[in-house]
Amino acid sequence: MKKSRNFAVKMRIDILTVMPELLDSPFGHSILKRAAMKGVAEICVHNLRDFSDDKHRRTDDYAFGGRAGMVMTVQPIDAAIAHLKAQRTYDEIIYTSPDGELFAQKAANRLSLLNNIIILCGHYKGVDQRVREHLITKEYSIGDYVLTGGELPAAVMVDCIVRLLPGAMSDETSALTDSFQDGLLSPPVYTRPAEYNGWKVPDILMGGNERQINEWNENAAYERTALLRPDLLEEQTLKNTSQSS
Amino acid sequence: MKKSRNFAVKMRIDILTVMPELLDSPFGHSILKRAAMKGVAEICVHNLRDFSDDKHRRTDDYAFGGRAGMVMTVQPIDAAIAHLKAQRTYDEIIYTSPDGELFAQKAANRLSLLNNIIILCGHYKGVDQRVREHLITKEYSIGDYVLTGGELPAAVMVDCIVRLLPGAMSDETSALTDSFQDGLLSPPVYTRPAEYNGWKVPDILMGGNERQINEWNENAAYERTALLRPDLLEEQTLKNTSQSS
Repeated sequence: MKKSRNFAVKMRIDILTVMPELLDSPFGHSILKRAAMKGVAEICVHNLRDFSDDKHRRTDDYAFGGRAGMVMTVQPIDAAIAHLKAQRTYDEIIYTSPDGELFAQKAANRLSLLNNIIILCGHYKGVDQRVREHLITKEYSIGDYVLTGGELPAAVMVDCIVRLLPGAMSDETSALTDSFQDGLLSPPVYTRPAEYNGWKVPDILMGGNERQINEWNENAAYERTALLRPDLLEEQTLKNTSQSS
Repeated sequence: MKKSRNFAVKMRIDILTVMPELLDSPFGHSILKRAAMKGVAEICVHNLRDFSDDKHRRTDDYAFGGRAGMVMTVQPIDAAIAHLKAQRTYDEIIYTSPDGELFAQKAANRLSLLNNIIILCGHYKGVDQRVREHLITKEYSIGDYVLTGGELPAAVMVDCIVRLLPGAMSDETSALTDSFQDGLLSPPVYTRPAEYNGWKVPDILMGGNERQINEWNENAAYERTALLRPDLLEEQTLKNTSQSS
């Protein structure tokens, strides 16, 4: 597994799905389209049906053991992955599943350093377990909830990863002030008008004292985190403790 | 806040966004289209620009205090919400944000019992804090990662909620065997062929002994959960302990 990435080579993400049309608009607009146009990342969506040996291009079948719901078969997935691997080396072959490791910003940071990844989107009751055992190198879940398929999770992961690539964002400094990157939630933000419907912007933010504003932002970020996500502060404390010991 | 729902009335979800085109394909296909066609749920996407007083239909402005990135202004959001509220009562007005409560299956179950909800999609550096203080009733985050906008989180939440509505799924029993609904991950699933590339399906699943198969599935679900997500078992133990005490 490669640990670092040659940024002269654009990142390539291949998505395997039985419903490619679900990904048209997330990948056809916004940052992902811009990233593709700028040559920062190349995102290729493949229809698994195109790799099916079945004469009806089927990619699913009934589950063994009488369980309800359909299961994605091994053959089209194996064929699609083999087809891609014949063209280039892949750093990670990911399956999106509720029982994968919880995807978080740290994982996005790590994946953004890789050159080529494949994301397999699950559907129905999931994929045949043999795919997960023999073909997949990493499973991620985007959260503790169940979705109709893996297309939205794949779109979420790709959006999260691609915006971290140098040149993907229009405002270069913007990603650095994101929530989570420094272990704190962002402070509240305000824009014009200074008063709306009797609701006012805090005076300090409209004054020109940079030191006071920075202090206010730092305190607000800390307070919001303590109030809304104390677990993030605990993680930081643990990290600091283990680093100093 | 209503706690229960009249299932004779279809659920309505209004989405407020500055990039409605991002939601075309997730809402135009799959379960969400089927749910709309069956009259189970109605999903309406609104372009916030249509509610802007600004002559250029702007919906964002520079942040006070010199922070990088743009902030969504109060006025178009206030106008859109007022417009919707004049037509019906809303049970919840949700903002998708990294500092919201972590969205999980329990929240999806709760939301699926409501009649009308609004989801506001954040963009840029977020919305003016006054929107969150005065107009939003609940904030959810779909995970500890940062995305370009709130459109994918809204799509994730809607997919998760709508599939719980009676009649939304083609296979009625399917949602009951989902991961998380019983506090356990799903057992592995297999489908034909019984052998692929030398990789075999466990013998028990291909036999006809229902008791053995159920036992195998239960054990496998428990083992997978213990291995991959022991926190789910701890939650259950805590719940059982507090219920019995």
